[in-house]
Amino acid sequence: MILNTLPKEDGFRMPGEFEPHEGCILIWPHRGDSWPYGGDAAKKVFRELVRLISESEQVTVCVPPSEYDKARDFLPDDTELIQVETDDSWARDYAPTFVKKGNITRGINWCFNAWGGDYDGLYDYWANDDNLCPSLCTHENVDMYDAHHFVMEGGAVHSDGQGTLITTESCLLSPGRNPHMTKEAIEETLCNYLGASKVIWLPEGIVNDETNGHVDNICAFTSPGHVVLAFPEDKTDAQYEPSKKALDVLRASTDAAGNPIEVHLLPMPKPCLVTKHELDGLDLLNGEPVRTVGERLAASYANFYIANKTVIVPGFDDDNDEVARRIIAELFPDRRVVTLQSREVLIGGGNFHCLTQQIPKAE
Amino acid sequence: MILNTLPKEDGFRMPGEFEPHEGCILIWPHRGDSWPYGGDAAKKVFRELVRLISESEQVTVCVPPSEYDKARDFLPDDTELIQVETDDSWARDYAPTFVKKGNITRGINWCFNAWGGDYDGLYDYWANDDNLCPSLCTHENVDMYDAHHFVMEGGAVHSDGQGTLITTESCLLSPGRNPHMTKEAIEETLCNYLGASKVIWLPEGIVNDETNGHVDNICAFTSPGHVVLAFPEDKTDAQYEPSKKALDVLRASTDAAGNPIEVHLLPMPKPCLVTKHELDGLDLLNGEPVRTVGERLAASYANFYIANKTVIVPGFDDDNDEVARRIIAELFPDRRVVTLQSREVLIGGGNFHCLTQQIPKAE
Repeated sequence: MILNTLPKEDGFRMPGEFEPHEGCILIWPHRGDSWPYGGDAAKKVFRELVRLISESEQVTVCVPPSEYDKARDFLPDDTELIQVETDDSWARDYAPTFVKKGNITRGINWCFNAWGGDYDGLYDYWANDDNLCPSLCTHENVDMYDAHHFVMEGGAVHSDGQGTLITTESCLLSPGRNPHMTKEAIEETLCNYLGASKVIWLPEGIVNDETNGHVDNICAFTSPGHVVLAFPEDKTDAQYEPSKKALDVLRASTDAAGNPIEVHLLPMPKPCLVTKHELDGLDLLNGEPVRTVGERLAASYANFYIANKTVIVPGFDDDNDEVARRIIAELFPDRRVVTLQSREVLIGGGNFHCLTQQIPKAE
Repeated sequence: MILNTLPKEDGFRMPGEFEPHEGCILIWPHRGDSWPYGGDAAKKVFRELVRLISESEQVTVCVPPSEYDKARDFLPDDTELIQVETDDSWARDYAPTFVKKGNITRGINWCFNAWGGDYDGLYDYWANDDNLCPSLCTHENVDMYDAHHFVMEGGAVHSDGQGTLITTESCLLSPGRNPHMTKEAIEETLCNYLGASKVIWLPEGIVNDETNGHVDNICAFTSPGHVVLAFPEDKTDAQYEPSKKALDVLRASTDAAGNPIEVHLLPMPKPCLVTKHELDGLDLLNGEPVRTVGERLAASYANFYIANKTVIVPGFDDDNDEVARRIIAELFPDRRVVTLQSREVLIGGGNFHCLTQQIPKAE
């Protein structure tokens, strides 16, 4: 069913990612201008990510039909594969955002426009990605709220599952999203669809993040009342100001329940710069934004995925990998927290959280 | 479920429109640059169309949420309304094309690009329309074949339900659809998804038809082995050559069963020309193709809808309205064949067949 009502009015809410999952949706990396040299290196990291999640959740991978045989051979046997066209591989952003109420799960069909449409979108053609959410609602046999009047990506919001959302102004107030809407109207829309009552607006995300600074790359709830925040030690780092402003907002905020939010700072890796070799491996399409050698990638430890029994933290071959892992591990005492080296995914523009979308477990 | 297989291999086929329907899907006319003066006149014709179909089928109308109250007041009480965003109102082209096998119905998710995308598409933004098919599969709770690699509209094909399809070269070979595919590959795709074994290619459709000449405006199956074809009497009419070429093709063709196809000629109305008053009533958006005063509209009696007990034929306030109605009535001895004046719909660029999409009845 396409639903005419609002999830909040129907008593539905977006659970926190740390609540139990039914499964996880990912998309096979296949886009030539995202993944160098045919994406072979990215696929190996992707397979390990799938394997780690599969230890405690059913994994479903969307695969373009032309890559099906390759993906079937390459991925674990217990991974469910769906053949469906997509333009790129960021399930977080265009697989359904799921809400739930008791034992009922429903999807929300946001409009996806490649992070900015004609204004500053990252590719010219995004119809397959925009189509994925209603297709997956069909596949998962869940009813769907139509929110296609609203441009939004799953990575633009975090929920504590108890009425509090965190997003960024740089993204959701960007002229490439919903320029006709006021900040208040955007806030109301988020609350109505995600069953929340409070939105905390961080000014910006990670420097040079091509999504206009998705919140999921700088900050994440680890439980109600607790967030991690990517925060560089070096005050001269370009990331310092955005992170400091975010910290100030979070420290001055209370959550929907009126409680303060404890902020746990995550270190940053040393700047990860694109190499000539990486760029040479891209199969660039006409008119796509092009990176330059030495450009900084939006590397952040906050882009982890919380599976039912494991938290998978991106590693950057950096001394801080283990520091970040330990901080996160302390916040998830009941889960195994592992580092998976992510350079080959990061070059595509996101990380493990961007690649995944959890399906909440019905009670 | 999103299905990985091909309908033909699964034993599914697209029934003829003259086979029993479960219901019919339409979309509320709302687009400012399609329907003059807020579409008030078009909505009256639309309501009468809905009423006529409702006599023998359940009608479902998709309505943008902002127009819901208006549509609910205006349409018959037994019409089901779904609130969902769309860009225009041509359900034939972007509601699901349904296939069936016994008591199972499934939808096909073609890619929709506004009849030509960046090449010669009719509007700049068509994401809501492209999104409609998977959304409606969710709504109707039917499994969906993913054919989003293939640009196609429902109005581009007619099926006799017994393995024969008719389409037009001007449309499906247009550079705005699937320029990377050969004619043979397109034919194979159509047959695989619609459960057919033969495609008859008419060279062109109706002159000045903005869809690159959809077959459903020039020709239609009335039963297996029988088609009607729009055919002007006047050899100097611009439509004469396209219709003559179509007639030659049809007369030289056999259907999938190897039988000849009997062609019943429909007259044409006198040329219907856009008036200044009509154009003045349009709310034009930037960059849309603009009509000029005196331009010929693609009027054709072949654009009728075959409901379970009624055939609704467009009228053009023309002496040939009744001639055409009688010819069609002879071909549907078990149905009431009625003329509904259609000028206010035609100005939007299509007619009753374009506005409707039947859901076949499961056996």
